[in-house]
Amino acid sequence: MKFAIIGGDMRIARLANMLEADGHEVCCYGLDEAPADLVKSCALSVCAADDADCVILPLPVLNMRGGLNAPLSAFNHDAEEILRKLPKKAIICGGMPGDKISKMAEELGLDFVDYFKREELVALNALATAEGAISVLLRNSPITIWESRVLVVGFGRIGNMLASRLRALGAHVSVSARNAGDMAYIRAMGCAALDTRTLGAELGSFDTIINTVPARVIGRDKLKYISKNTLCIDLASRPGGFDFEAAREMDINIIWALGLPAETAPVTAGKIIKETVLNIIKEKRSGI
Amino acid sequence: MKFAIIGGDMRIARLANMLEADGHEVCCYGLDEAPADLVKSCALSVCAADDADCVILPLPVLNMRGGLNAPLSAFNHDAEEILRKLPKKAIICGGMPGDKISKMAEELGLDFVDYFKREELVALNALATAEGAISVLLRNSPITIWESRVLVVGFGRIGNMLASRLRALGAHVSVSARNAGDMAYIRAMGCAALDTRTLGAELGSFDTIINTVPARVIGRDKLKYISKNTLCIDLASRPGGFDFEAAREMDINIIWALGLPAETAPVTAGKIIKETVLNIIKEKRSGI
Amino acid sequence: MKFAIIGGDMRIARLANMLEADGHEVCCYGLDEAPADLVKSCALSVCAADDADCVILPLPVLNMRGGLNAPLSAFNHDAEEILRKLPKKAIICGGMPGDKISKMAEELGLDFVDYFKREELVALNALATAEGAISVLLRNSPITIWESRVLVVGFGRIGNMLASRLRALGAHVSVSARNAGDMAYIRAMGCAALDTRTLGAELGSFDTIINTVPARVIGRDKLKYISKNTLCIDLASRPGGFDFEAAREMDINIIWALGLPAETAPVTAGKIIKETVLNIIKEKRSGI
Amino acid sequence: MKFAIIGGDMRIARLANMLEADGHEVCCYGLDEAPADLVKSCALSVCAADDADCVILPLPVLNMRGGLNAPLSAFNHDAEEILRKLPKKAIICGGMPGDKISKMAEELGLDFVDYFKREELVALNALATAEGAISVLLRNSPITIWESRVLVVGFGRIGNMLASRLRALGAHVSVSARNAGDMAYIRAMGCAALDTRTLGAELGSFDTIINTVPARVIGRDKLKYISKNTLCIDLASRPGGFDFEAAREMDINIIWALGLPAETAPVTAGKIIKETVLNIIKEKRSGI
Repeated sequence: MKFAIIGGDMRIARLANMLEADGHEVCCYGLDEAPADLVKSCALSVCAADDADCVILPLPVLNMRGGLNAPLSAFNHDAEEILRKLPKKAIICGGMPGDKISKMAEELGLDFVDYFKREELVALNALATAEGAISVLLRNSPITIWESRVLVVGFGRIGNMLASRLRALGAHVSVSARNAGDMAYIRAMGCAALDTRTLGAELGSFDTIINTVPARVIGRDKLKYISKNTLCIDLASRPGGFDFEAAREMDINIIWALGLPAETAPVTAGKIIKETVLNIIKEKRSGI
Repeated sequence: MKFAIIGGDMRIARLANMLEADGHEVCCYGLDEAPADLVKSCALSVCAADDADCVILPLPVLNMRGGLNAPLSAFNHDAEEILRKLPKKAIICGGMPGDKISKMAEELGLDFVDYFKREELVALNALATAEGAISVLLRNSPITIWESRVLVVGFGRIGNMLASRLRALGAHVSVSARNAGDMAYIRAMGCAALDTRTLGAELGSFDTIINTVPARVIGRDKLKYISKNTLCIDLASRPGGFDFEAAREMDINIIWALGLPAETAPVTAGKIIKETVLNIIKEKRSGI
Repeated sequence: MKFAIIGGDMRIARLANMLEADGHEVCCYGLDEAPADLVKSCALSVCAADDADCVILPLPVLNMRGGLNAPLSAFNHDAEEILRKLPKKAIICGGMPGDKISKMAEELGLDFVDYFKREELVALNALATAEGAISVLLRNSPITIWESRVLVVGFGRIGNMLASRLRALGAHVSVSARNAGDMAYIRAMGCAALDTRTLGAELGSFDTIINTVPARVIGRDKLKYISKNTLCIDLASRPGGFDFEAAREMDINIIWALGLPAETAPVTAGKIIKETVLNIIKEKRSGI
Repeated sequence: MKFAIIGGDMRIARLANMLEADGHEVCCYGLDEAPADLVKSCALSVCAADDADCVILPLPVLNMRGGLNAPLSAFNHDAEEILRKLPKKAIICGGMPGDKISKMAEELGLDFVDYFKREELVALNALATAEGAISVLLRNSPITIWESRVLVVGFGRIGNMLASRLRALGAHVSVSARNAGDMAYIRAMGCAALDTRTLGAELGSFDTIINTVPARVIGRDKLKYISKNTLCIDLASRPGGFDFEAAREMDINIIWALGLPAETAPVTAGKIIKETVLNIIKEKRSGI
């Protein structure tokens, strides 16, 4: 098979390298400054993708300025222009395209798949994020995880995988959630279940508090219970789960760990995208 | 609070006992042959439930003959007649009522809740079932779970909790599922992922095969790969996941473990129903 | 290689069967009533062992009456007479021979090894015993191990392996030991550490108490704190760790689980002996 | 009680702070540059220890130049001179004193205890070291621990605790040891057992190799099998388990992680010394 890899960060560069090692033909564009041992050559024009069976766009497709997400390129790339030049017969895989790109892909008649909607990618990404969070915790705490009291706020995929790993490392783990069903699963894994909405004075008893909820759940009213000795880690993307401004005033120590697992485990993160793209192709071809 | 407990098996008898121990007023009906240390007295008429705040019906509400599920009673009880006599102002909790009872409850204007639809009950019931399955396995296998090769067919709640426990006990665990997302979660917990639909010759390599799928997934075409030395356990309710008739012909050893966890852990099973009923009441009262 | 298997229980019968399946020549004596699918033929005289490279005697070598431990034979066998007839050039492996047999083997110039002194056998036997104890517990308790409070008395090999498995199944596990070092290891595995000598009122708070100490550690003075609802399991060989007579008077429920793992996992138990004997031979031959 | 704390690193500074927080009287010497929030004041002369009930010396007692190990002091301190001034009636606790200090303490009639010989300290120190090793691994690896292939060389306390944690995080763990007993324990915890002495080509299949053996076990003859992509971590103190010079020539990536857990978890490390010292005092007083 021939893959065209367009833009992306170190995960995508690793992905390109792994696809090549698997014996596929790989052509890259927008990866001109990627390490040479990962991406040997880079096309000068996106037309190199013309005869690809599968085109892989970055995760997310766009950067904060609305251009193609291509941090390993020396140039700016117009995502829409690229989209218009992509081959109609190829499978186009992109992560979190956003409304504009999705709509445009549809209008262009592209066979576009958002790989970030695939459960296997989200699951293993959550796992790698949970492990990255443990790395952040270990690096920033003067105590062992063992016998420490940890609160994980939120019981989504990341909260679940993080809590089970922390318990396996010997922490006393509490997890907060919002419904009786989640609380049952929390107990089932040997952790204590708390209600996120009513978290209060008990916040003072934790050595570490890790937020996984992508909403402002730890506001000023809850921050006041948290000790200055508690290490807080926020895994939520913007705007984050803690009220950072209030925390700064109150001298509470928060680490905002964005970019996991791309930062802590780029090879695995790339491998997860690779496996997902191969699953997408397999299913397309077998007509599932 | 006053509870009326009507019918049910040992789980419900335990539940009655625990509610009483918690300080609630409890009146029982249809539990006339329950152990006297659990159910001290039993009403002669269902009218005793008239002033109850909450009525608890069995799990499932009906027995195989369509009457009230009351194995601890010397009498037959007409579920519909009982339903008509229940107080309108009480919360009526029953497990798996079935269409007929559900519809009738609605027509009668009863405040009826199917507690088997509550995620916390289903979750903890799955956990207790998984533990019961381990008990069945240990009792029937001449080898240790440790270093044995186990296949769990299906990755629903029970499959998930069973697989993680078997792995913790040192088994080499494979789990079969039907989609890439489930397979990712299976790998995330350290087990090998297989595709249920394409299970074939690899079936011959397992010491134990445990089915959790409530459908005929292991037919004659798959049974032929299973060794006579393999212990098969079916946790699925009727009609079961194995083709039992074919298995008998082929001399394959299958244990159909029905009635877990009521049989292996009646106290915990009763406690789970108790906690769920209390959650239902709490939510009703707080207007969630 | 040629093995002579003399006496023994189901473990040894399985061992004979496995050695044969591995391609070795196997001759049995004193296993005349073993299942025919395990032991195909049995010699009429111990002289059949004459040209064996390795002779395997039972675990323990002697039965309670001082004869050869041969529960699968219709006959009584004089162990000393057998010993005198064993080939001098063979490696003789026996488990727990006792002083008399050991001394006699030495006087006869036999190359005798007590395989029960091998750490790999004792370790894996402890593991299989721990798993057997979990089977006994699951079979006899009306509650799940999950969320139950369990005390393991003693932190030897069995106590250690049992506690880690119980914790993995979700129990709240306490382990009692007698020195600060053991207590540190108990905490390291996520369990609560207690002092065996000062166990008192806290005994009343456990759902299950499992003794692993081969000495009378739970006497009348401690039994008085144990609830009638607590399930007690004694894994210690004679005379056992509980004061059984006092317990009977006090109506405390104790299960004396002797004969693990021969009873619960005879195949694994036989395999462990097989592997140990093969290690002994390998080391003898390589002159370690 | 009154404690005199003399010299030491951040662990000892934390220990001083914790003892004070516990309500003990604490006087420090040789900690003049410790953070002021941990050590409020520091004596100008060791005579301040005169009326102490217990004197705590560092771990190890001496630095590389033979003086008192006092990295948080602006001054050099003569350990022998200090020893001569210590009170005869106090319990003197020091870690790894070495022959010279031990002998001198005996001659002076001091009640000297080497706390590094206490099993509880060594055990929990090993645990904290294992966790520190995981931190080093996570920080330096571009792949997740999950699904990675890890070899732990050596099955002492650290190897044991490290292997069980790596397995809990989802790695495929092999552990190498030198005797059949250890190999059985390795298998018992669900890891693959290898023989340290015969490690060869299989070294090429690991993503990570962690040495825990304090001897040159991975020489040039073994290094040649290790891939350039493999991350090697050496936890052994001088001279280390890898042949570093050969590894440099061969371009193999080795991290020598010395100073764990003092670096990664100084608070826990200090707490472990504190608990051990308190155990020593308790046992001395109860005459055990």
